[in-house]
Amino acid sequence: MPDFVAPQVDVPALTEVLDGPHAEIRDLCRRKLIEHAGLLDDAQRLDRDGYRERVLQTLLQLTDAGATTLGFPKRYGGGGDLGAAIAAFETMAFGDLSLLVKIGVQFGLFGGAILQLGTERRHDRYLADVVAGRLLGCFAMTEQGHGSDVQGLQTVARYDPGREQFIIDTPVDSAHKEFIGGAAAHARMAVVFAQLEVGGAGHGVHALLVDLRDRNGRLLPGIRIVDDRQKIGLNGVDNGRIWFDRVTVDRENLLDRYASVSADGVYSSPIESPDRRFFTMLGTLVQGRVSVAGASVNAAKVALTIAIRYADRRRQFTGPNGTEELLLDYGMHQRRLLPRLARTYGLHFAQEQLVAEYDDVFTHPDTADPKRRRALEARAAGTKALGSWLATDTIQACREACGGAGYLSENRFDALRADTDVFTTFEGDNHVLLQLVAKGLLTNYASEFNDLDQLGMVRFVAGHAVETVIERTAAHSLMERVRDLLPAGEDRGDARTGLLDPSYHSAMFRWREEHRIDGLARRLKRGAEDGMNAAELFSRCQQHAVEAAVAHVERQVLEAYEQKLASLPDGANKTALCQLRDLFALSVIEADRGWWMEHGRLSSQRAKAITREVDELLRKTRPLAVQLVDAFGVPEEAVHAAFLH
Amino acid sequence: MPDFVAPQVDVPALTEVLDGPHAEIRDLCRRKLIEHAGLLDDAQRLDRDGYRERVLQTLLQLTDAGATTLGFPKRYGGGGDLGAAIAAFETMAFGDLSLLVKIGVQFGLFGGAILQLGTERRHDRYLADVVAGRLLGCFAMTEQGHGSDVQGLQTVARYDPGREQFIIDTPVDSAHKEFIGGAAAHARMAVVFAQLEVGGAGHGVHALLVDLRDRNGRLLPGIRIVDDRQKIGLNGVDNGRIWFDRVTVDRENLLDRYASVSADGVYSSPIESPDRRFFTMLGTLVQGRVSVAGASVNAAKVALTIAIRYADRRRQFTGPNGTEELLLDYGMHQRRLLPRLARTYGLHFAQEQLVAEYDDVFTHPDTADPKRRRALEARAAGTKALGSWLATDTIQACREACGGAGYLSENRFDALRADTDVFTTFEGDNHVLLQLVAKGLLTNYASEFNDLDQLGMVRFVAGHAVETVIERTAAHSLMERVRDLLPAGEDRGDARTGLLDPSYHSAMFRWREEHRIDGLARRLKRGAEDGMNAAELFSRCQQHAVEAAVAHVERQVLEAYEQKLASLPDGANKTALCQLRDLFALSVIEADRGWWMEHGRLSSQRAKAITREVDELLRKTRPLAVQLVDAFGVPEEAVHAAFLH
Repeated sequence: MPDFVAPQVDVPALTEVLDGPHAEIRDLCRRKLIEHAGLLDDAQRLDRDGYRERVLQTLLQLTDAGATTLGFPKRYGGGGDLGAAIAAFETMAFGDLSLLVKIGVQFGLFGGAILQLGTERRHDRYLADVVAGRLLGCFAMTEQGHGSDVQGLQTVARYDPGREQFIIDTPVDSAHKEFIGGAAAHARMAVVFAQLEVGGAGHGVHALLVDLRDRNGRLLPGIRIVDDRQKIGLNGVDNGRIWFDRVTVDRENLLDRYASVSADGVYSSPIESPDRRFFTMLGTLVQGRVSVAGASVNAAKVALTIAIRYADRRRQFTGPNGTEELLLDYGMHQRRLLPRLARTYGLHFAQEQLVAEYDDVFTHPDTADPKRRRALEARAAGTKALGSWLATDTIQACREACGGAGYLSENRFDALRADTDVFTTFEGDNHVLLQLVAKGLLTNYASEFNDLDQLGMVRFVAGHAVETVIERTAAHSLMERVRDLLPAGEDRGDARTGLLDPSYHSAMFRWREEHRIDGLARRLKRGAEDGMNAAELFSRCQQHAVEAAVAHVERQVLEAYEQKLASLPDGANKTALCQLRDLFALSVIEADRGWWMEHGRLSSQRAKAITREVDELLRKTRPLAVQLVDAFGVPEEAVHAAFLH
Repeated sequence: MPDFVAPQVDVPALTEVLDGPHAEIRDLCRRKLIEHAGLLDDAQRLDRDGYRERVLQTLLQLTDAGATTLGFPKRYGGGGDLGAAIAAFETMAFGDLSLLVKIGVQFGLFGGAILQLGTERRHDRYLADVVAGRLLGCFAMTEQGHGSDVQGLQTVARYDPGREQFIIDTPVDSAHKEFIGGAAAHARMAVVFAQLEVGGAGHGVHALLVDLRDRNGRLLPGIRIVDDRQKIGLNGVDNGRIWFDRVTVDRENLLDRYASVSADGVYSSPIESPDRRFFTMLGTLVQGRVSVAGASVNAAKVALTIAIRYADRRRQFTGPNGTEELLLDYGMHQRRLLPRLARTYGLHFAQEQLVAEYDDVFTHPDTADPKRRRALEARAAGTKALGSWLATDTIQACREACGGAGYLSENRFDALRADTDVFTTFEGDNHVLLQLVAKGLLTNYASEFNDLDQLGMVRFVAGHAVETVIERTAAHSLMERVRDLLPAGEDRGDARTGLLDPSYHSAMFRWREEHRIDGLARRLKRGAEDGMNAAELFSRCQQHAVEAAVAHVERQVLEAYEQKLASLPDGANKTALCQLRDLFALSVIEADRGWWMEHGRLSSQRAKAITREVDELLRKTRPLAVQLVDAFGVPEEAVHAAFLH
C-alpha cells in the first residue's frame, strides 16, 4: 500500500449521488442535526425523565421548523411530499435515535394511522393539531401476548347501539398494550387496534381513536398505564403498557376508511373479505417499515464512518520498517469493515428504490394496482429485515474494530448499538417479515394465493390450497432460463475469468433465488402429499422460506446497485462504486459458496478464486475507504466520537 | 412433536457432570449469588457512583466469606486452590458482571500480579492485606496508545541510583494508562507496567508497585487520574486513566521475580533473552484469560436459560389445530437457539480441561515444562477468543429470540449483553489472540521459533527465520495421515452414512486444522520467496492465520466433548450429550462446508445430507432443551428475567 498512488473519489459528487432526489431536505436535516447536536451529550447526561423531556422539546422545535411533517397534506400544515418525509427521517437517523423514534411514533404511526385509516372528517378534526405537535399521540397495536401476530390480538371494541359508543376492554391480562411509545408520559390520545364486535359478530382488527389523558396530563377513567421503564436503548422514548377497563369512545372514533358502523349497529366495509380488509389496512402502514429500513442503513453509516476513520489513524504493532502500522492496512481489519461498507452502499441504493416506489404508490393511492402495493409491502418487509440486521451486525463489528475505545460511551457505539438493537424486532420481527416475503414469492407463482394471510405461513400451509399452488409453479422453466445465463468461465480453464462480470453476479443471485423458491415449493408439496402434520411441515420449511427471502432481497440489492451504476457518468466515482458492487456481490457469493457448490453452480477452483478476488478488492478499496465514508455526509457534530477529535 | 413421548435427562446428575471437581465451591457461590441477588436490581436503579459503591461493598462481603480469594496461598488467608478459584469466578458470572470484573481486577490482576511477579518479600508485605480486601489495587498495563501490543507501551520507569528509587513518567499523552479498573475511585495502589531503564539501558516492560492514593483516598503527588465515566456496560467498575509525572517509588517496588536492580544500579534477571523474559512474565498472568473464557461461557448459559425457557412457554401464531404454537416448536427458532446450546456445552467442557491444565501447571510452577506452559497460554488465548464470541453472539441471538420483551432491561439481556461485550476485547483482542494461537501452531513445526514474539506475526514474518521454519514443517505428512482417517462413507453410496460417527467428526476437524496451518505456512513461504514486503505479506496472511486458529480451537472443543463422553456411564444423559456433540460437530461442518467442499473433502450430496442431519438433531434436541439449560444450574435469583415470573 505505501508505494501506491492513492486513487481518488470526488466526495461531494458522491454525496450528491447518495442524497438523490431529496438533497435539499437532507441538507436541511443536516443543519438541524448540527443545531441540536447537544442532544447526543444530554442523552448520556440526563436521567430518564429528563432525557424524555429533552427529546420531546427537540421534536417540537423540529416540528416548528417543518422537518418532521413533510408527509402530511399541505392543507393540514404538512409538506405534501412522502418521499421527502422519508428522506428527512433517514437523515435524522444520523443523530439521536430516541428523537428519531419519537418522531416516528408521533407523525409516522399516530398521525400516519389517522391519515391512512381515517376519512376526511377525522383528518379535518385532528390532523392540523397532530402536524403542529399540539396533539401528541401513540400507536397502540402490539400487545404483550401478541407482537408480530397482529391478527391474534385480543383487545375488544364492542359496539353498544344504545349509547352509540364503543366499549374498549382488555379482556385478559396478556392483552394489555405493550411497548407503546408515548404512552408512559406524553400521549394524550391513542390509535388503538382492537377486535371489533358489532351485534355479537366479530369483524376482526380495527383501529379506533381513544383519549388517554386530559389536557392536564391526568389519565382518564378506565385507562391504566404502567411505564416500561428502562430498556436496552431508546430511553428517551416513554414506552408504556396500557390496560382498558370499559373505556367508551364515540361511534365516529372508529377510523372509517375501510369500515364503519351505523348508529343502529350495522357494520359495513368496502372490502368484503375480512382477511383482505385486515391486510389492506395494515398495508397502508407500510411507511413504518420503509422508515426503519432507511434509519437502519444510516445508523450503519455512522458506525462505519467512525470505525474507518479511526482505523486510518490508529497505529498498532511495529512493522518491519520500524514504524507502527495503521489498522486499516491490516488485511484482517479490511475484512472486518470493507465488505460491510459495500453492503451498506448496496442497501442504500435498494432503500432509495423502495422510497421512490412508496412515494409513487402512496401519492396516488386510489389508482395503484393492488399487486404493486403488495410488491411494495414485500419489498419494505425484506429491506427492513436486511437493513436492520446490517445495522446490528455492522455496529457491533465497528465497536470491536475500535477495541476498548469503542466500549467508552463517549465514542458513540454505546447509543448506536443499544438504540438500533430493537430495529430487528419492531415493525415486525425480521424472521416473520422474511416469511412474509417468502410467501409473496410463492404467490407470484399462483395468483389465487393473494388473499391468504400475509403474516406467516402457518395458515398458508394449513390451508387447503397448498397442492393447487405448487402444481402451478413455473419454477423449473425459470431455473432453466437462468442456468443458460451463467457464463462459461468455469469451462474456459481460468477460474477467475468473468468474476467481475456483472452478468455473472446477476445470474448467480437469480439462480439462487429461483432455486430456493422452487425448493421451498417442492418441500411444501412433498410434505403435504405425505400427509405430514401441517404444523410440523411448516416448522420444517421455515428455514428454507427465510433463506429464499434473503436470496430474493439480496438480488434486489444487487439490481439496485446495477441500476444506480447505469445512471452514472463514467469517472472515478463510477469506478469506485463498480468496485464496491463487485465486493458486495462476491462477498455474498463467498459467504454462501457452500450452497452454490452443493447445487453444482460453483466449482471448487472457482470458489477459491472468488476468495482471492475478494481479497484483491479489499486491497483496492482500502485507499478509498475514508472518502467512501466521508461521502455519506454524516455531519461532524453527529459523528460525535470523542476519540476522533 | 406433540405425539411424542419426550425423552428425559437426569437434570441433577447432569449438573453434577457440569460442575465437575469443584461442585462444592460452585454451590457456595450459588448461595452467595442468591444472597446478593438484589445487586441485579440495584445495578439498574442506582446511579454510577452508587452502583460502584454497591459493587465494592458486595466484593468485600464475598471476600469475608472466602469466595473470592481461593487462589492465594493459605498463609496469606487464601484457599490455596487455583482450580477452585476459577470455578468460583465462573459461577459468579451467573450474576452481576461488574461485581465479577471488580473481583477479577482486585484478586486476579492486582493480587495475581504481586503473587506471580513478586517474590516472598513482596508477598509477605502485601498479600495478606490484598486477600483481606484491606488493600485495594488496580492493574495498570494498557495504555491509550497501546492495547493489545503490550511490548509497545511507553510509560517509563527510570532508575536513579542516587536516590535508590525509580522515577515513573508518562512521556507522551497517549502513554497514559487507559481503562484501568479501580483507578477512578477505589484503588490505593497500582501494579504499573513500564519500560525499565537502568543506567541509560532499556530492559523492556516490567511491573512496579506504585501508590496512587493515601489512606484518605486523596491522590498522591504526580498522579493524575481521569474517570472513564460511562461505558457500554460494566458501569459498576470504576475505570479510569492514569498519568504519571515524575512519581518516585522505592527500589524494592519493582516486582522482582524475573528481574531486579541492585542499589548501585545493576540490572539482573534469571532470563537472559529480553523477549523470553517479557513473555515469561506475561505468561504468568494467563489466569486472566482463563477466567474471562469461563465467565463468557457462563454468561451465555444465562442467556440460553432465559431464551429457551421463554420459547417453551411463549405461544405465537395460531397453528392448524386452532391453538397457538410454542416458539420452540418452530424449526427456525430451534435453528436460532439449539446449535448455540450445543456449542456452549462444548466450550464448557473445553474450559474445564483448560482450568485443570492451568491448575496443574501453576500449582507446580517450578517444575512445569516450558512447552507445556506455552501450550497452556495458547489454549487460554484460543478458548478466551471463542468463548467471548460465543457470549456476544449467543446473548444477541437470545435477545432477538425473545422479541420486544427481550429489549426491556428487566428481562436481563440488557446487562448481559452490555457487560460481556468488552470480553472480546479485554485480556487481549480476540483477533490478536487468535494470531498468537496460529503462531504457536506454526512453531510446533519448528521448535527454534519458541523464542520469537508471541503477540503478533508482524515480527515473525519480518524475522530472518521464515524460510528455515517453513522448510521444516511436517505438514504434508500429517495431512496424508489424516486423510487416511476419513471414513469411506462418501464412497459407499449413502451420503448420510457415518455422519454421526465421532471418528468422522474428528477426522474432518483435524484435516481442516492441519490443512489450514499448512496453507498458512505455504503462503508465508511463497511470499517470502517472492520478496514480498513483509508488512504486505503479513496483511495478506492474517485472515488465514485466524482461520487456522479457529479450526484448532474448535478441534480442541470437539475433543473435550469426546473425552467427557468417554468418562460417563451409559444412560440418558450420555445419550443426550452425544446428541449435542453431534449437533455441535455437524453445525460446525455445515457452517464451513464451502471450505471442505473447496478442498475436496466433502461432496455436494454429503453436504446436503449434513444439513438434513442437523435438522433432525434439532428436532431430537428440542424436547430436551429446557432440561439441558436447567442442568446449567443458574440459580433462579440470578436468571432474574421478569417475564419468566
